[in-house]
Parts: sequence; C-alpha cells; structure tokens
Amino acid sequence: MQDKHISLAHGNGGRYMRELIERVFARHLANPGLDTRADAVPLALTEGDVMFTTDGFTVQPLEFPGGNIGALAVHGTINDLAVAGAEPLYLSLNAFIEEGMQIARLERIVATLAETANAVGVRVVAGDTKVLPRGEGSGLYLATTGVGIRAAGVRLGLDCIRAGDRILVSGPVGDHGIAVLLAREQFGLRGDLKSDAGSVLPLTRAALNLEGLHFMRDPTRGGLATVCQEISQASGLGVRLQQAQIPIRDSVQSVCEMLGYDPLYLACEGRVVAVVAEAQAEDLLTHWRRLPEGADAALIGRLEERSPQVLLVTELGGERMLDELEDDPLPRIC
Amino acid sequence: MQDKHISLAHGNGGRYMRELIERVFARHLANPGLDTRADAVPLALTEGDVMFTTDGFTVQPLEFPGGNIGALAVHGTINDLAVAGAEPLYLSLNAFIEEGMQIARLERIVATLAETANAVGVRVVAGDTKVLPRGEGSGLYLATTGVGIRAAGVRLGLDCIRAGDRILVSGPVGDHGIAVLLAREQFGLRGDLKSDAGSVLPLTRAALNLEGLHFMRDPTRGGLATVCQEISQASGLGVRLQQAQIPIRDSVQSVCEMLGYDPLYLACEGRVVAVVAEAQAEDLLTHWRRLPEGADAALIGRLEERSPQVLLVTELGGERMLDELEDDPLPRIC
Repeated sequence: MQDKHISLAHGNGGRYMRELIERVFARHLANPGLDTRADAVPLALTEGDVMFTTDGFTVQPLEFPGGNIGALAVHGTINDLAVAGAEPLYLSLNAFIEEGMQIARLERIVATLAETANAVGVRVVAGDTKVLPRGEGSGLYLATTGVGIRAAGVRLGLDCIRAGDRILVSGPVGDHGIAVLLAREQFGLRGDLKSDAGSVLPLTRAALNLEGLHFMRDPTRGGLATVCQEISQASGLGVRLQQAQIPIRDSVQSVCEMLGYDPLYLACEGRVVAVVAEAQAEDLLTHWRRLPEGADAALIGRLEERSPQVLLVTELGGERMLDELEDDPLPRIC
Repeated sequence: MQDKHISLAHGNGGRYMRELIERVFARHLANPGLDTRADAVPLALTEGDVMFTTDGFTVQPLEFPGGNIGALAVHGTINDLAVAGAEPLYLSLNAFIEEGMQIARLERIVATLAETANAVGVRVVAGDTKVLPRGEGSGLYLATTGVGIRAAGVRLGLDCIRAGDRILVSGPVGDHGIAVLLAREQFGLRGDLKSDAGSVLPLTRAALNLEGLHFMRDPTRGGLATVCQEISQASGLGVRLQQAQIPIRDSVQSVCEMLGYDPLYLACEGRVVAVVAEAQAEDLLTHWRRLPEGADAALIGRLEERSPQVLLVTELGGERMLDELEDDPLPRIC
C-alpha cells in the first residue's frame, strides 16, 4: 500500500487487495475464528435455535457524535439478534469502499468496528471488500450478517401480542436521527447531542428473564411510530400511546420543532420497544431502569381491542393518528 | 409504488419501503424460511459443521450475456461454500439500490436471483434494502452471506496441500471476465461469448467423493493465476503449470490478445481449481469430464518441492513466472 488512498487496484484480487485486507481488516478484526485465506469458515455453535439476520449501512456522514458507520454496522445487526431473543456470536462483513477514500479514515472505522465487536463478544469471521469507482459510494457502505443462538423455548413474535399488553420503550427516542442530522452541518445548527448507537443486549437479556414478554423490536428507520404501526397491523389491534410518557430529550424536541420533524418517526440505534403482558409491565420497567441503558425507560402505551391504528393521546388530552410513514424525513441515518 | 423508479422514500422504513419489499423481494423470494416481518429468523440445520461465508457484488453492466448481478450474487456465495466442502442451505441478501433505478429492472434481477436460488436449493431467509441518492451506486450493489453444512470428517484446506499433488481446473478460464468486458461495448467489440457464471456444486460433490482431495477454490477476481499464487504461498511449494493443458476458448484468447489481457488473471464464476493427490488425479478428471459442468476439465499442473513461485511452462517449452496481480486488469467483474 504505497498510497494513502484507496485505488481500484485495491479491489482486483491481487497484491494491493491482499495487503489492504491483511493490514486494515484482518489486523484489527483478528480472532481465532477469522481465516482470510478460507472460502468459508466453520462456526462453533452452542445449544439452541440458530438465528440469522442481516443489515446494510449507508449513513452520512460516516462519523458522527456518538459513533461511526463501523460501530453502527455491529450494533445494528447484533441488536436485531438481541430483540429476537438471541445471543449474537458471529458476524460477516461486506465493505464497499469508494476509490479515493483515505486509508487512515477507513482504518479508523474498521478499528471502531473491531472494538465494538469485542466489547459485545461477537467475532467477525467472514468478510469481503469491493472497490467502487470514484464518485460512487460516498466513501463507504457496509453490510453485516449475524448468527446467534436463541435458548430453546424462547417464544417471541408479533403473533404473541394480545389485547391488554403494555408497550415500553427503553429510553429517549430520536437521538440518533438528530445527532446524524446535526453532524451534516447543513442547517447551521450545532449541538452536543450524541447518537444513542449502542448494544441493546443488557436490555433484552433482562427482558428475557421475565415471563409475559411477547415481543421486542429496536426502532431504527421509521422510529417508534413505525414499530407501533407494525405491532398494530400484525396483531390486528389498536395501539394507544401516551405522548406525556414518551421520553424525548429537549434538544431533540427543539431541533424537530425548528425543522419540522416528528421525533416519533426518527431513528434510534440503541433502544428497545417491548410488548409485555400487563401483569409484568411494571416488573420490566423496574428491571430496565436499574440498567444504565434503561435509566429513562418508560411505559408508553397499550394494545386495545379495536381497529388496527396507532393513536397518540396528546399531552393536552387530544388524540392524533400516527400514520405509516410516506415521505422521506431524514435519509441515510443508518 | 405509484412510480416506476426507485425514490429515496423506498428506503425510509415506511410504506414505500414495505411495498417494495413485499412486491419485489418477498414475492419472488417467498419460501417457508423467509419472514420479512422478523428481526432475525431461525435456521433449521442438519448434522455436520456449520459453514459461513460472504461476498459483495458490483458488476457493471448489471446484466450481461450468461447472467446478471442477481444470478452472480447467488452463485458467488454458494460456490464459496461448495469449494469449502459444504452443501449451501441459506442466504441473506443486502441490496443497495440507486435512486432512479427502474423498478422493472430491479424486479428482473430479483426474479433471476430467486430462480437461481431455487435451482440450487438454497433459501434466501433474511434481507435488507437501502436506497442510495441518485448518482451513487451505478444502479445496484448486492451482498449475500451464506450458511451451509459440511459433512463431519471432510478435511480440505491450503494446509492439506503436499508436494507431488496435481492441479486440475474444471473448464475454460476467463469466460466471465471477457463476457462482462464485451457487454460494456466500450471497445467496439462484440461476440457471442457467455459468462460461465453457474453453480459448481455438481463438481465439488463429485470431488468430495474421492479420497486424496486436498483443496478446492473457485478462481474469481484475479483468476487462475491468483489461485495458484495463493496455493504456492500458503503451501510454501512451487506450482508448475503447463500452458498447453489450460483450457481457454479461442474467443477469449483473441480478445485478450487484442486488448492486452492475460486470460490466466481473468475472472471465472463457475469453475473450480482442485488440488488432489497424484494417485487420484486421473480419477477426478474422469469424474469431472462426465459432468456437463466439467466436460472440458483438465489436469494443468503440479506442486513441487522448490521456492514458492508459480511457473508457467509455455507451449514452446519456455518458462514464465506468473506474479501476483498488481494493476487492475478489469475492474468490477463481480
């Protein structure tokens, strides 16, 4: 790698590509399960159901307060395993790198990705890199695919939701969406808001210990309102949310008011929405609030025997329908 | 989906995205293991080692004689499992779609991807879509991650290679590289050459039935010469190839001569290079030649107790070193 920038030769299968993989990817991601010379690697798996998920990452800018695309690529996929009730074990990583990208910047992102994976105990064991011609790709796109194990007998899903169930959220919504927006600096706004990008595993583990847990989802693209839409549509039940109970930071609220966004549709990257039987709802709230990730958790709504719509009871006591998102509020936040 | 083209709203998590996933992806890819509403899905796995691999796809043009990026995204990943001695079972799919892409074109590619997966008996059970702003992405990038099962006791790998082993290739090399190059029509050349993109499973299954099989790899980016470099470097042995034995189509040879490419470095997408003990080499050749995929298979070289280099014995009896690829011969063929 004589050059400090990515060239098309870094994608051709030859020496430059081998060196890029060895010096940037394999060096940071080194672990006993990773063999960059193998076409496929064996996975050592424990007892239980093998769970599988994938996610793509195109956030702009690539680095933002509270994280970067590398951290996001780990958290996004392991959180999907976590809310499905699984313990994440392995990741694969695809990198689509734009010609001209600074290798130092790429390395910073890969290093964060590796640290994030280590911190949550998952191993990146398979990978692939492709180089895109200059002008395509805005620097870097990533995709990660995750494998985890769900304990036998765990039963969670949209079809487990019942009328009377309560809805909880583990913390303030919209932080990620607004943090990324501010990082673009295109609105002349600044703030010290950080993305909530993080692992939800402590939250999902605590929830799985409780009977009465019916469903979990992390509200990413489309935000809390979209998860509630999915819950309502799939269960055929009405969702009633109490606006006064939904945690939203003042800084998120005020940016939303200035720019005309609804925080309920903004992405989070480290929150969980849980649907739990009424009898266990307070227990889950107590458990979550004991965790640093769940200090601001709240009971925000319930499932009702009526037409499948999402109704927000406003702080003034009025009612507002939360419709399915149509327009694009904030592209490329994940 | 009122519009016939992809918009940024198709990536926002709301109604447009849901409809795109339902009408284009889920409709074609429907199978009992796919649940587009789930964060992660369980995999039913048979006995043996669980094998894992991933690959990204950025070929230009997206459609070419003999295939398209959808077929490639299935074959590329299942072939990596196949040469590792596994039977592929499941795929995840990431699509990075450029704003403005014709939905009809996207659907054609997804339909081919689904047909290809069905034909080889693998199920696409997890997926994600992201939309890239117009001007980025040249239409479509894909990534697939595969899970397969390798029978207990199968032992293959670069570290199994021994001096005296023979090297076989399952068919003509360079077809894919030249077919994609001609499809770009930028050189004023035309031809009826088709990509060799296809499943190598019949070839790897036949090879796994033989004792003495030490290693298999599909020569994609970097071609046959790059696989031989990897074999030589990893084993610490010399590779001697006989040029006269290496199958190359006349049409590939003549385009290479006109444009100054070396066919030994061009990508294949449906070939296997196998390293086998000398005593079983003729057996493997016989088995492969009985298959339609292996009709032109050939014994092309051997491993020798000398410095780790790749030596090509030319048809005139001279010797030429095949070095590791440095420059970019033909970008974005996969």
